[in-house]
Amino acid sequence: MKLTILKDQLSESIQHVSKAISSRTTIPILSGIKIDATPKGVMLTASDTDISIQSFIPLENDGIENVQLVQTGSVVLPAKFFMEMVRKLPSEQIEIEAGENHQTIIRSGTAEFQLVGFDPEEYPLLPQVDEEKVISMSSDLLKAMIKQTSFAVSTSETTPILTGVLWSLTENNLKLIGCDRHRLASRESQIDTPPDQVIKSVVISGKTLSELNKILPDHNSLIDIVFTETLVLFKLSNVLFYTRVLEGVYPDTSKLIPQQFQTEMVIKSKSLMDAIDRAYLLTRENKANIVKLVMNDDQTIEISSSSSDLGKVKEVLPVSSHSGNLLQISFNSKFMLDALKVIDSEFVHIGFTGPMNPIVIQPEDGTRILQLILPYRTTS
Amino acid sequence: MKLTILKDQLSESIQHVSKAISSRTTIPILSGIKIDATPKGVMLTASDTDISIQSFIPLENDGIENVQLVQTGSVVLPAKFFMEMVRKLPSEQIEIEAGENHQTIIRSGTAEFQLVGFDPEEYPLLPQVDEEKVISMSSDLLKAMIKQTSFAVSTSETTPILTGVLWSLTENNLKLIGCDRHRLASRESQIDTPPDQVIKSVVISGKTLSELNKILPDHNSLIDIVFTETLVLFKLSNVLFYTRVLEGVYPDTSKLIPQQFQTEMVIKSKSLMDAIDRAYLLTRENKANIVKLVMNDDQTIEISSSSSDLGKVKEVLPVSSHSGNLLQISFNSKFMLDALKVIDSEFVHIGFTGPMNPIVIQPEDGTRILQLILPYRTTS
Repeated sequence: MKLTILKDQLSESIQHVSKAISSRTTIPILSGIKIDATPKGVMLTASDTDISIQSFIPLENDGIENVQLVQTGSVVLPAKFFMEMVRKLPSEQIEIEAGENHQTIIRSGTAEFQLVGFDPEEYPLLPQVDEEKVISMSSDLLKAMIKQTSFAVSTSETTPILTGVLWSLTENNLKLIGCDRHRLASRESQIDTPPDQVIKSVVISGKTLSELNKILPDHNSLIDIVFTETLVLFKLSNVLFYTRVLEGVYPDTSKLIPQQFQTEMVIKSKSLMDAIDRAYLLTRENKANIVKLVMNDDQTIEISSSSSDLGKVKEVLPVSSHSGNLLQISFNSKFMLDALKVIDSEFVHIGFTGPMNPIVIQPEDGTRILQLILPYRTTS
Repeated sequence: MKLTILKDQLSESIQHVSKAISSRTTIPILSGIKIDATPKGVMLTASDTDISIQSFIPLENDGIENVQLVQTGSVVLPAKFFMEMVRKLPSEQIEIEAGENHQTIIRSGTAEFQLVGFDPEEYPLLPQVDEEKVISMSSDLLKAMIKQTSFAVSTSETTPILTGVLWSLTENNLKLIGCDRHRLASRESQIDTPPDQVIKSVVISGKTLSELNKILPDHNSLIDIVFTETLVLFKLSNVLFYTRVLEGVYPDTSKLIPQQFQTEMVIKSKSLMDAIDRAYLLTRENKANIVKLVMNDDQTIEISSSSSDLGKVKEVLPVSSHSGNLLQISFNSKFMLDALKVIDSEFVHIGFTGPMNPIVIQPEDGTRILQLILPYRTTS
């Protein structure tokens, strides 16, 4: 293998694939990035067996010559070092030459590195993906749907299936759900796909989806998503992101969501969020982060919390509409803040079915987001 | 105590004094910030006994009314919480009212906090400082001198005196020295002071000086520094920064510094720094960070390093002038980088007195900085 490549393009590709490098891998070769130089361009690959990411640098695009290929071939280089080294190289042109025993020489300006490479033959093969079930959607929508659901997944490995986000598709309606034992976040959207395309129940790690979100492009573009029994593949323009599907049966969450409310209110999102954020300050010492909400009969609510060490806070806010019984309810303020943060609507609708039952938060702008949090059962 | 104060001014003052709050204090009241409301304005005080910082907010400055004072008085509030709370308050106007048992009510917009305060009578008194020995200097020069020396102090508590920077003043010449067992950094400058003003040997913690640097204003202004037997007080416009002087005898470092060199070279700072930075990449696994410098007879030097795991690097750089014997020398690349980083000169002069003797780095622009590092004694 011998080629010259542009620093910025190489750097960006390394950054993309390095999201799949685990610092705790027990398989030495997986601490490396595989470089394949082909007549079409240079492909970088990294994997931790759960996620694999490939980034392709074409010989040329937009009239810019990214790669001057002298000889095709492959080598695997230590990821962490390779990444830092490329960033610090003095010239925009980087020459990479793999020789005997995978010894690799990297030249740039006055600098010359000789790196100990791994044998590319030993690098695990990526799975062949059967492209039977493919959906296409805009990267902006995908990003938003992931952001609005993945924060709510469980971080506990005792129920692995709940660390994932549930994906389903029927009648052009894509739905994502993340939940743990205390809260649930769901987001639905119509997408443009043949109406007989059905995805029953595919669960993808919430953490993996957050990593994917970091790679999704800043400008809106179309993403193909390929679903198989065991894998999902996200196809960006020059990046392939493979992730394993979580095994197990995702619980039926539909019964958790109240179909009608005893009490409803509409309130300005930002003023509610800021007041809860201040009340949250006093609750950080205890795990439950309990904040109390009391509805008054004058179209206001009171948000309050207290700490034996520090003191207490209360704040009265106007609601813009209210119906049903007046109630008092306590909840985890951290969960409420998380839910409010991903709703990008000036007003939110909050529905209650009594002080012991789930609280449902939805945007007033029509976006099909539903956030549910369980109240905290206090004695007072 | 009762007053209304502007949020931004209060926030800035809290940020300044909070540098003196230690998270590991064993004296509960020192986890708080003392607030004194006087007819002239509001004084905030924080201390960890080694450092004390006071920040004063006058009732009015530049035609802006900072404080509306209703009633003078004092209270001590928990620092960490107070800081976060003020930042999150909804209005620019903050009302603070200390009542019975130091219970303090804070109102801003719709929010009302009730904080548990400490008794201000129990807060330790700050020492009276006798202003006999005072020097004045520009804050920009002070900042630069601290930056150029404090990084080189020892981080080991086995020789506490070496964790400090040595200050001395004779014949209008202020000199700061930081050193540990492997390197030394010194900076001198003429300052405008009566020529009979002498400071013999005052040692101030390097860490404390770095904290001071964060508070020094961005715009250049005159700073008064008051020296006493046990304390040094830095007087900024509205901030007083007290620090304890380190006890003990600072070693005589003058004999360490070679008076003449066997070999000298002048080289572009940035290209040397970048090459060493790349070589440093390969040395991070071992503690000594060894990089080798070899002088060639064609007015070039070779910088190289190697690691058994990763490989090796070498780089040839031109020198702009050279005199004396050609030599090979190895050194800790991290120390060399630290020294080069604080020298703001296009070219540096490096002096050697053989492969086992100190390396001396000085800027070519006339600034009186001297950086010394000991070489690494290799067998090859």
